[in-house]
Amino acid sequence: MYTYPFKLEKLINEISKLPGIGPKMAERTAIYLLKKGQPAADALSEALDGIKDIKFCNICGNISTLDTCAVCTDEKRDKGVICVVESPEDVITIEHTGKHAGVYHVLYGVINPLNNILPENLKISSLVNRAGAPDVREIILAINHTVEGDATSLYIADAVKTVKPDLKITRLAKGLPTGSDIKYADEITLGQAILERKEV
Amino acid sequence: MYTYPFKLEKLINEISKLPGIGPKMAERTAIYLLKKGQPAADALSEALDGIKDIKFCNICGNISTLDTCAVCTDEKRDKGVICVVESPEDVITIEHTGKHAGVYHVLYGVINPLNNILPENLKISSLVNRAGAPDVREIILAINHTVEGDATSLYIADAVKTVKPDLKITRLAKGLPTGSDIKYADEITLGQAILERKEV
Repeated sequence: MYTYPFKLEKLINEISKLPGIGPKMAERTAIYLLKKGQPAADALSEALDGIKDIKFCNICGNISTLDTCAVCTDEKRDKGVICVVESPEDVITIEHTGKHAGVYHVLYGVINPLNNILPENLKISSLVNRAGAPDVREIILAINHTVEGDATSLYIADAVKTVKPDLKITRLAKGLPTGSDIKYADEITLGQAILERKEV
Repeated sequence: MYTYPFKLEKLINEISKLPGIGPKMAERTAIYLLKKGQPAADALSEALDGIKDIKFCNICGNISTLDTCAVCTDEKRDKGVICVVESPEDVITIEHTGKHAGVYHVLYGVINPLNNILPENLKISSLVNRAGAPDVREIILAINHTVEGDATSLYIADAVKTVKPDLKITRLAKGLPTGSDIKYADEITLGQAILERKEV
C-alpha cells in the first residue's frame, strides 16, 4: 500500500502537535506547503527561528524583545496599577482599548485542577511579591468570567490580601456588550446586568 | 501602545498564511510555540526543511520520494486502470480501502471558474495523454460529488473521449453511506439512492 514519504509524514506529525490542529488539517497544511514549494516553507522556518530572540519580561512575564518589556520600562506607565491577565493576547487586546495606563502581569493560564494547572504552575507568587511593593495601589483582575477565572480571581485576591490587606483589588465589569440586543442576550449575562444596574 | 515584538509579528504573519488559519489562531499558535521554546520550533523548522526532498511523480503527479512514485513503479499495480483524484489526500484514503489495484492521477483541484481554476490549471492534459496509451482500459473518476466535481468529471470524460472514444470511464457510486440511518439522510443523497437502487 502506498503511504506518504517519510519526510512528509514527519511534517504532518509536527504540524499536528500545534494547538487546535487535528491530523486531517495537519495533512492538508503539509500538502499546501509542499505545493507552495521550498520558499514558503523557508519563510516559515526563518520566522520560527526568530523565537530564540523573543524573551519573557522579568517583571510582568509578558512577551518582550529585551529582558524587561516596553510597558515595564515605560516612564509614562503608572506602576501603581497592575492589570492581571491570563495570556499575552489579552495584553494586546487591552492595549487596543487605550483605557489602561498602568502595567501588566501575565499569569499564563488559570487555576484548573482537572487539567493539572495548580496555583504554583501560574505566575501568582511573583504577582503577590509585586503587589507587596509600597507604590502599588490597585490590582485589576482582567481574568475571563469563567468558572476557572472566578476561582483564580478569588485565589489571587486572598493571596494578595495576606501581604497587603487594604490593597484595592478590582475585576472587570460584567454586563451586556456595547451594541448588543437584549432579546439575544444569554440569561446569565442579562441577569448579571440587571443585578449590577447603574443609576443614570 | 505596546505591540508584539517584530519577530513574533512576523511569525504570526507566516502562520496566518496557512490554509484555514485565521489571525487569532495564528496568534495563539505563535504564542504556543514561544511558550514551548526553541526545541519545538526547531523540530517544526527541521520538518519543513524536509520539503525540499519531496517530489511530485512525473507520471501521476502524486507525492513521491523519487521522480516516479511507488505506485507507478510497482510491477503489481494494474497500469490499465487509472483512478483520477482531486488531491494526494484522496490517494491515501483510497489506498486504505484496498479496493483499487490500478494506478492514480492527481488533478490538484477541480474546475472552478469563480476561483479562477480553469482546466489548464489542472493536470488534465497529462491525463488525456496517459488515457491515450493502448494498455489503458478504464478511467475511474474518483472526484467529489460536488457541482465543481461533476463539471470537472464531464469535462474530463469529453476530453478523453476525443482521443479514445470507446474507453470505459466510470465515477464512484452515489448512495447512502454504509451504517447510515435513512431517517437522517439528506434528501439529495436519499433521492439518488432510490433512483440508483439495485436488485438484490
